[in-house]
Amino acid sequence: MSKLYLVGIGPGSSDYLTAAAINTAGSVDVLVGSQRALDLFPGFEGQTLILRARNMDEMMKKSIYLVDEGKNVAILSTGDPGFSGVLNPILKLRDDLDLEVIPGISSLQLAAARLQIPWDQVNLLTLHGKGNSKIILDFMDNGKPTIVLPDFKVEKLAQFLLENGVDQDRKVAVCERLSYPDERIVNGTLKEIAAMDFTYLCVVIIYETF
Amino acid sequence: MSKLYLVGIGPGSSDYLTAAAINTAGSVDVLVGSQRALDLFPGFEGQTLILRARNMDEMMKKSIYLVDEGKNVAILSTGDPGFSGVLNPILKLRDDLDLEVIPGISSLQLAAARLQIPWDQVNLLTLHGKGNSKIILDFMDNGKPTIVLPDFKVEKLAQFLLENGVDQDRKVAVCERLSYPDERIVNGTLKEIAAMDFTYLCVVIIYETF
Ligand SMILES: C[S@@+](CC[C@H](N)C(=O)[O-])C[C@H]1O[C@@H](n2cnc3c(N)ncnc32)[C@H](O)[C@@H]1O
Ligand SMILES: C[S@@+](CC[C@H](N)C(=O)[O-])C[C@H]1O[C@@H](n2cnc3c(N)ncnc32)[C@H](O)[C@@H]1O
Repeated sequence: MSKLYLVGIGPGSSDYLTAAAINTAGSVDVLVGSQRALDLFPGFEGQTLILRARNMDEMMKKSIYLVDEGKNVAILSTGDPGFSGVLNPILKLRDDLDLEVIPGISSLQLAAARLQIPWDQVNLLTLHGKGNSKIILDFMDNGKPTIVLPDFKVEKLAQFLLENGVDQDRKVAVCERLSYPDERIVNGTLKEIAAMDFTYLCVVIIYETF
Repeated sequence: MSKLYLVGIGPGSSDYLTAAAINTAGSVDVLVGSQRALDLFPGFEGQTLILRARNMDEMMKKSIYLVDEGKNVAILSTGDPGFSGVLNPILKLRDDLDLEVIPGISSLQLAAARLQIPWDQVNLLTLHGKGNSKIILDFMDNGKPTIVLPDFKVEKLAQFLLENGVDQDRKVAVCERLSYPDERIVNGTLKEIAAMDFTYLCVVIIYETF
């Protein structure tokens, strides 16, 4: 029977690929992923479908269609497919598929590793697809650091927090383009971060107040 | 300068090792880990120190001592060193070391993958070293599934939950020995799970009530 695999590829560099991801991707008929994700599997000889920000929904439906047609398909997901990844939208589209999830190193894990934060003692949060950033405010004063995947630019998130009364001297770290050659870790106060410029690929840590 | 590496090796099978873990382990003078962890690096030719449940503290101190003596040392940690792993105790022993954390696939991630649960929408909890299981009760009725690493046998945890008023028909899944050939996923009610027998290596999921 044909199967849909959701394969976690880690934060970007091939350093964080697992053998499980490599073997699964090598075994399917069709690989679906961003160009950047597909580039991690240069030896792949089957059909490829390129995911773009705009065609996510269409490509997920097409993947399901191909599985129904008898193909084995793997959708490559940044980080872990189960953390703010493709698992949730796929389950919403179809919950009766033969599905297998291959976990991957989430960007939040590499951020926690770089900053040496034990992440069993933090607030973990994604703002992707939430449409409402207010949920983050509930976590600001519970005495734990907050690791958040923002759905928009970091400086906007910082400005939003300032406008909503979070202390401008609150310590923040931004982990940009983790695992890429131009990876950057920026530490600063909330006010400083709000005045800086970041790309879209960032994990943000807002430290606890003491 | 010599360095201490905390290397996540995933839940057990070599399928979940990353290239970063393999390369780091291959580059150090001393590898510290359980026999099971060391077995994942059969080609390693340097010094090895075997971690046992009883000598954890001693081996961590010895690792730090060896770094101070000028050796590069890697401590192999099941799953991710940052989730209920060696990062926290190492930081408590010494916070001025040249330290690098290599994240790994946590057992909680493989559990979530097997059960197809998006883990950005769950309660994540470890009972290791907490000495008090009561903290889990706070999460039982917040409408989210709870993924927990128990510090003792699963059937004891289930009995504890029953004694503290959690509904005996509550749905539970136990993920035992994930990634090993004898991996087992057991689904049942809390009452059923409390009457069964499991090994120590388990991740437990307590589903939300609807
Ligand atoms: C739709 S979410 C996918 C998260 C992914 N499933 C994971 O586990 O990392 C996309 C967000 O992940 C974060 N992200 C992914 N890769 C990253 C990287 N290499 N560096 C920094 N952040 C990254 C960013 O916050 C980005 O907005
Ligand atoms: C001290 S904690 C270490 C957790 C580890 N750092 C991680 O990220 O998975 C040990 C607990 O992890 C869980 N665990 C580790 N490996 C496992 C496996 N292969 N299968 C099931 N549970 C596992 C069990 O709950 C065990 O009691």
